[in-house]
Amino acid sequence: MNDADYMKLALDLTKGTLGQTSPNPVVGAVLVKDHQIVGIGVHLKAGEPHAEVHAIKMAGEKAEGATLYVTLEPCSHHGRTPPCSDLVIQTGIKKVFVASTDPNPHVSGRGIQKIKNAGIEVEVGLLQEEAREMNKVFFYNIRTGLPFVTLKTAISLDGKTATVTGESKWITGEEARKDVHQYRHQHDAILVGVNTVIRDNPSLTTRLSNGGKNPIRIILDSQLRTPKEANIINDNLAPTWIVTGNKANPDLVTEFRERGIEVIIMPNEQIIIQEMLKVIGEKGVTSLFVEGGAEVHGSFLKERAFQQVITYIAPKLLGGKFAPTSFGGEGINKIAEVVSLNIKDVEMVGHDIKIIAEPK
Amino acid sequence: MNDADYMKLALDLTKGTLGQTSPNPVVGAVLVKDHQIVGIGVHLKAGEPHAEVHAIKMAGEKAEGATLYVTLEPCSHHGRTPPCSDLVIQTGIKKVFVASTDPNPHVSGRGIQKIKNAGIEVEVGLLQEEAREMNKVFFYNIRTGLPFVTLKTAISLDGKTATVTGESKWITGEEARKDVHQYRHQHDAILVGVNTVIRDNPSLTTRLSNGGKNPIRIILDSQLRTPKEANIINDNLAPTWIVTGNKANPDLVTEFRERGIEVIIMPNEQIIIQEMLKVIGEKGVTSLFVEGGAEVHGSFLKERAFQQVITYIAPKLLGGKFAPTSFGGEGINKIAEVVSLNIKDVEMVGHDIKIIAEPK
Repeated sequence: MNDADYMKLALDLTKGTLGQTSPNPVVGAVLVKDHQIVGIGVHLKAGEPHAEVHAIKMAGEKAEGATLYVTLEPCSHHGRTPPCSDLVIQTGIKKVFVASTDPNPHVSGRGIQKIKNAGIEVEVGLLQEEAREMNKVFFYNIRTGLPFVTLKTAISLDGKTATVTGESKWITGEEARKDVHQYRHQHDAILVGVNTVIRDNPSLTTRLSNGGKNPIRIILDSQLRTPKEANIINDNLAPTWIVTGNKANPDLVTEFRERGIEVIIMPNEQIIIQEMLKVIGEKGVTSLFVEGGAEVHGSFLKERAFQQVITYIAPKLLGGKFAPTSFGGEGINKIAEVVSLNIKDVEMVGHDIKIIAEPK
Repeated sequence: MNDADYMKLALDLTKGTLGQTSPNPVVGAVLVKDHQIVGIGVHLKAGEPHAEVHAIKMAGEKAEGATLYVTLEPCSHHGRTPPCSDLVIQTGIKKVFVASTDPNPHVSGRGIQKIKNAGIEVEVGLLQEEAREMNKVFFYNIRTGLPFVTLKTAISLDGKTATVTGESKWITGEEARKDVHQYRHQHDAILVGVNTVIRDNPSLTTRLSNGGKNPIRIILDSQLRTPKEANIINDNLAPTWIVTGNKANPDLVTEFRERGIEVIIMPNEQIIIQEMLKVIGEKGVTSLFVEGGAEVHGSFLKERAFQQVITYIAPKLLGGKFAPTSFGGEGINKIAEVVSLNIKDVEMVGHDIKIIAEPK
């Protein structure tokens, strides 16, 4: 094991914790002394100990003189827990490898400086790219105050989301649907258009074999057409927010609020996606998983309001000139003006192909 | 190198010859004696020597007592060249490995039997699956008399073939377009609908950096609407066939024929794809590359008249409820009745994703 191997281990420790630490990043730490691992740690939940604390605690007396590998810069401020940089210094750590600095421009580098000032050697940047990729949601949110938006679609190989008659269950296979639930678990909030609520009456909860965290469920509903009897309104399985326009019926707004639904009234009749993102970002949503339908995706596309697109392609051909597709709306007129993406990953999920792409 | 390695080499020798041997299969041969390669051969063109002949000729005297690895059963009949099985016997080959028997039920096994009868050891089936995959077009055509049909589409990540205004040049990148030309080179014929001819006025020739063989160009045109001034009618770069219905204007038919265009009149007003395939199969087309548009693909889908689907997915989002997609027509109503495919390969071609699938 060399330095990169230990840092890779620290990164691997965070696997599976994505989603459970929000609004905090995922962080892993490994302590090594005399070529032996003496402690490992991972941040599990906001308000609970940071990764370094767990690792140092596990190492006990052996932490003194050890080398720390940590995926994110140790914090320097008193938050819900004491600053990790102080702990590192007090423990007598000999050297610290940091994969990435803190993305918050107001605190970035302070933890590292504090440790350096105590005479401890610090190296920054080992596996930095991997560390930033892992926390891309956190980094984006800290930088912009907006949620990191992922658009998810499931289509046939000929680009259809349903047959010409509207049948869509199930285009993709069980493994792909499970994969979607993993994403629900990892996101603070999930968003659908009101037409999806009317047509499918979904619960939008996380149904993984071992449970899972339900995201806040957000309905984009400019005219407040959400049925009062919808599952999402009555099941109390997770918070439900309705984002509506300024012409929404006030009596209905009151009625939904009395049922415990958060109704967010935007300043215009039509909802502007970027404004909506700002509002829910201010309300603490750091990540948003958009599950459509086509008109909703079309709106996000029109405003270029997304950071990632996840597409499941089922090995099926549906045909039909009038069969629905994944991105509707007006569309973009000229090829020169379309949204170009970078393909980040292509993999098989069961019998389906999964493509992860990001706007250029 | 073990037996499988030598057979793999024999298979590799055929790379790049697909398309140039039609209506013959691609075949490779390797001769080994005392653990040394003494001859290699590949079939280059119908009417020219078979792979075994080249390998034996290269080996000269060393062929005697050598082991032959050949991807397809040596022929036993006098065709345009003398039977290879006789040559194998006369040369004094010691042992023969055959990857696959001949798919033609009337001759399958005869070449092998002839060699065995001469007291030469024969082993059949080494890398058989790879050998059959490589010649799947030939195997299918021999078995059915029909061309092996490949449907090719190029779509955006949201399944569109053009913007809402109809702009489609270029959705995919240069590498993907080159890849398409490689397929044109490999196919006996290429097919498009008349609307593609009217709209794009394509030449449908093979334009690879080092040339390439032009396929026969077939236009599906039930009402004989092909413009007389179309490139494909006047450029004389490759044979052009128009498949039309029985209500086609006879004067126009005569006019096209006088220009050297082959006009095939089908027995009905509308063209039935399976009947059309039978006719062009009888005329010697062993492989057909269908380049659309959407209505043509829809027709092939409706009749389940294809053996392979090649889809290029460009990392772009176009949007638009009314933007065109790759498979049009009436479409399939129920998910339970849609055409299910097996994904055979997923790879990046430049910035685009290429998916090869076959009907289950």
